[in-house]
Amino acid sequence: MSRPAPLSGFPELLPAQRVVEQHVLDVLRRTFELHGFASVETRAVEPLSVLLRKGEIDKEVYVVRRLHADDAGGEDADALALHFDLTVPFARYVTENAGHLQFPFRRYQVQRVWRGERPQEGRYREFLQADIDVVDRDVLAPHHDVEMARVMAAALAALPLPPVRLQVNNRKLVEGFYRGLGLDDDGVGAAMRAVDKLDKIGAEGVSAVLRAAGLDDAQVAACLALAQVRAEDSTLTAQVEALGVTHPLLSEGLAELVAVLDGVADVQGERVRVVADLSVARGLDYYTGTVYETRMEGYESLGSICSGGRYDALATDGRTTYPGVGISLGVTRALVPLLSRGLVTASRGTPAAVVVAVVEEAQRSASDAVAAALRARGVPTEVSPTAAKFGKQIRYADRRGIPFVWFPQEDGGHQVKDIRSGEQVDADPATWTPPEADLRPAVTTSW
Amino acid sequence: MSRPAPLSGFPELLPAQRVVEQHVLDVLRRTFELHGFASVETRAVEPLSVLLRKGEIDKEVYVVRRLHADDAGGEDADALALHFDLTVPFARYVTENAGHLQFPFRRYQVQRVWRGERPQEGRYREFLQADIDVVDRDVLAPHHDVEMARVMAAALAALPLPPVRLQVNNRKLVEGFYRGLGLDDDGVGAAMRAVDKLDKIGAEGVSAVLRAAGLDDAQVAACLALAQVRAEDSTLTAQVEALGVTHPLLSEGLAELVAVLDGVADVQGERVRVVADLSVARGLDYYTGTVYETRMEGYESLGSICSGGRYDALATDGRTTYPGVGISLGVTRALVPLLSRGLVTASRGTPAAVVVAVVEEAQRSASDAVAAALRARGVPTEVSPTAAKFGKQIRYADRRGIPFVWFPQEDGGHQVKDIRSGEQVDADPATWTPPEADLRPAVTTSW
Repeated sequence: MSRPAPLSGFPELLPAQRVVEQHVLDVLRRTFELHGFASVETRAVEPLSVLLRKGEIDKEVYVVRRLHADDAGGEDADALALHFDLTVPFARYVTENAGHLQFPFRRYQVQRVWRGERPQEGRYREFLQADIDVVDRDVLAPHHDVEMARVMAAALAALPLPPVRLQVNNRKLVEGFYRGLGLDDDGVGAAMRAVDKLDKIGAEGVSAVLRAAGLDDAQVAACLALAQVRAEDSTLTAQVEALGVTHPLLSEGLAELVAVLDGVADVQGERVRVVADLSVARGLDYYTGTVYETRMEGYESLGSICSGGRYDALATDGRTTYPGVGISLGVTRALVPLLSRGLVTASRGTPAAVVVAVVEEAQRSASDAVAAALRARGVPTEVSPTAAKFGKQIRYADRRGIPFVWFPQEDGGHQVKDIRSGEQVDADPATWTPPEADLRPAVTTSW
Repeated sequence: MSRPAPLSGFPELLPAQRVVEQHVLDVLRRTFELHGFASVETRAVEPLSVLLRKGEIDKEVYVVRRLHADDAGGEDADALALHFDLTVPFARYVTENAGHLQFPFRRYQVQRVWRGERPQEGRYREFLQADIDVVDRDVLAPHHDVEMARVMAAALAALPLPPVRLQVNNRKLVEGFYRGLGLDDDGVGAAMRAVDKLDKIGAEGVSAVLRAAGLDDAQVAACLALAQVRAEDSTLTAQVEALGVTHPLLSEGLAELVAVLDGVADVQGERVRVVADLSVARGLDYYTGTVYETRMEGYESLGSICSGGRYDALATDGRTTYPGVGISLGVTRALVPLLSRGLVTASRGTPAAVVVAVVEEAQRSASDAVAAALRARGVPTEVSPTAAKFGKQIRYADRRGIPFVWFPQEDGGHQVKDIRSGEQVDADPATWTPPEADLRPAVTTSW
C-alpha cells in the first residue's frame, strides 16, 4: 500500500484551510439567518429523470447505483444521480412538501454538488454551494429580486474575498430587445447563446456566430451594443433607449432591472458593487427574468462565483406553480483558488487556544480537571498527549500555533505561558481566559 | 408533472426538524472544538478498491460514474464509490497528507455517508455521521481510548436525546478469553461473529452457532458467560477472573478496559452511563482493542447510535502506520426516529424573531431600514412580503411562530407587538432587542 494521491476535481482542504472555509460558512449562515432564511438540506440524489428534464446538463451528471444491484445496469428512468446544483432539488422539495411549508418560503441551503466534468483549472467535480431562494405560490413579488441581491451583497461584503462586482441583467429585457430587432424564437435563442460566450470568443467571434444564425449587420451591431451596456443606477434607461429598439417585453424587463438597481443603492460600497451588465445571460434554461453573476476583482478569470436568477416555472406539480428567485455562492469555486495561492490564511489549524501540560502520566487527571474548567467557560483546550519534558510539550503547542501552555505547579498552584512572548504568569483555572483575539483562529487576507 | 414522492432510505427534514438537527450539530461542534478537535471534511467518493479493501461492506457500496462516460461501464479498480463511513476516508486522508499534519492529530468530521442497503425501518441509504478520531504515528497512547469516551459522553449529555448507555468492550480481552478457552483462529472469528448476533438471535441461537463451529459445551457456556458481564468500575476484573480463563491478551485487554472505566468515573451521570458490556463486538474488521457502542434508554430497538473503537492498523502507507481511535455518532440514526415521532421539536421553523410590517409598498425601504438596524444587533428579522392589512401581516408571523411584529408609525415612531400576549409597546429600532429566549428557536424534548 503506497501513499494515496489526490483525485483531480475533488478538492480537499488541510485543517488550517478548513478553518477559513468554516469561517466563510459561519458568515453565510449568520447573514442568511439574520435575514430570516430557514436552513434546508436535501438528499444528495435525485431521480435521473428529474435532473435531465432541466436540460443542458446531461453530460455532467454522476449516476449512482448499488455495486451488487439486481438489475444488470442500464439507466432506466428511476436511476438515481447526484444533484448538480441545489436549485433543482429545492424545487422538487418545495413541490413535495408544499402542504407543510408557509409561502412565500425563504430557505438557505449549503451542500456539496457534483458534476462529471473533465477536470481542468477552476473546474471541480465536487464542490460546495451556498444558496438562498424565495419561492411563493402562483406569483412571487418583484421586490424579492432586489432582496436576493441585497442579502448576497451583505454576505459578500463580510467574507474574506476580494472586492466583487455583482452583475445583474434581465432575460425579459434581452429577449424583448431581440424581438424588437425582429428576431424569431430561433434567432432569440441563438443570440442568447452567442452573447453568453462573449467572454470566451470576443465580439468578433460572437458576430460570426450571429451572422451564421442569419442576423443582418444592423441586428448584429445592435446585439453587441446591448451587451456593452453597464450602469449602476437609473441612467440605465437612457442607455438602453438610445439603442432605438422598442418592445413591451423590453420595457417590462428594463423596469425590473432599474428597480433592482434602485433597491440596492444603499448597499453599494467598496467591497461590493452592484452593476447592471447587459452581457450577462446565464446558461441555465430555467431563468425567466432577473439574472445574477458575480466576479471577484482581479480574479475575473475564475469566472462567476455567485450566480442565479428568477425562475417562474421551474417548480410545479401540474396544478400549482411555485415561482422563485435565488442566488448561489460557489464556496469552493471562490475559495479554493485563493487558499491554494496562500491569499487567505488562518492563524492555526486547530480550535485549541490552550494546551494543559501533564507533569507525569499518573497526574493526567489533574490536567484534565484544569481543561474541564477552561472549557466550561468556552476556552478550547487540549491536554498534552504526553508527560514529556515541558520543553517538548511547549513545542507541541508551538508547532500547532496554539498560543498558551498551562502548567499545574507542584504546590497546587497554576501558571500559564504565552509561548509567543514567553511571558508566564500565575493563573486560576476557574477565572482565567485568553484575550478574545486568541480564543479562535484568526483569518487573514492579502490581495 | 405530479407531486414527487419521497425516496425510501433518503430522509429529508422539514424546516422545524432541521432546526433541531442544526442544534444537534452546533452542540457537537462546540463540544468537539472545546476539546481541541480540528474540523476535516473529505470528498464524498473513494476509489472502489480502497473501500472494498476494508471488507464486510461490499454489498452496501454505491458506485458512481459519469452518465456519458467513455468506458462502457464495468467496475475497474479505479471506479469511484460513495464512502460508507468517515473512518476509511479519514485514514486515507491521514496517509495522503501525513507530511502536512501534526501528530497526534485530532479531528472531527460531520458528513453524509451512503450505504446501498435494502431499505427497512431504521436503515438509511443516506445519513449524517459525526466522528471524532485521534491518530498518531507508530504508537497511539492508551489514554486516548479514555478521551474518546469522555468527549462523546460530554456531547451526548448536552444533546436533545434520551439518556444513553455508552457500552465499552475490548477486542483483546474477548480474543484473549477465547484463546484461553483453547479456540484457534477460526474458532475465535466464529465466536466473535456469533456473539455479535446475541441481540438478534438470543443465547440459544448463539449456542447453536457456536456448537456448529465445533465448540464444546463448556466453551459455549464460557463464551455466553463472558457476554453476560457488565460493570461500571474495576469490579469488572473480579467478574472476569471468576470465569477462570487466563491468557496474556485477556489480561492486556482487561487492563485497558478497566483504565477506560476508571478514566470516565467523573463523567458518569443521569444523562450518560458508561458501562463495560462484554457482549459488544462491532462488525467492522478493523478494530483491534477498545470498542464502543451506545444505546438510547427506552429506544434500544434503534440499535447503536454511537459506535467506534481503536484501529491500530487501518491507516498505513506501507512504511508508516498511523494507529487511531475514534467514535462516530449516527446523527440521522438517532434523531430522525425521534423527530418523526414528535419527541423532539423546535418552537419555529425559521430563524426570524421579528417581522417588520410594511405600511404600503412604496414605503418598503423604511421597513428595510428597521430590519437592517435590528440585524446589526443580531436580531434575525424579516420584512413582510406584502403591504396587506396589518391583520394579515400578523397572521404571516403567527403561522410561522415568529413572536414579534414591528409597526413603523405614521408619525415616524415605532411600535412592536408580542403577538403571543398581544402586548404592543413603543420601541426604538436602534436599541430594542427581544428577550434572549425568543432570539432563536427553542428545542423541546419529551420522553
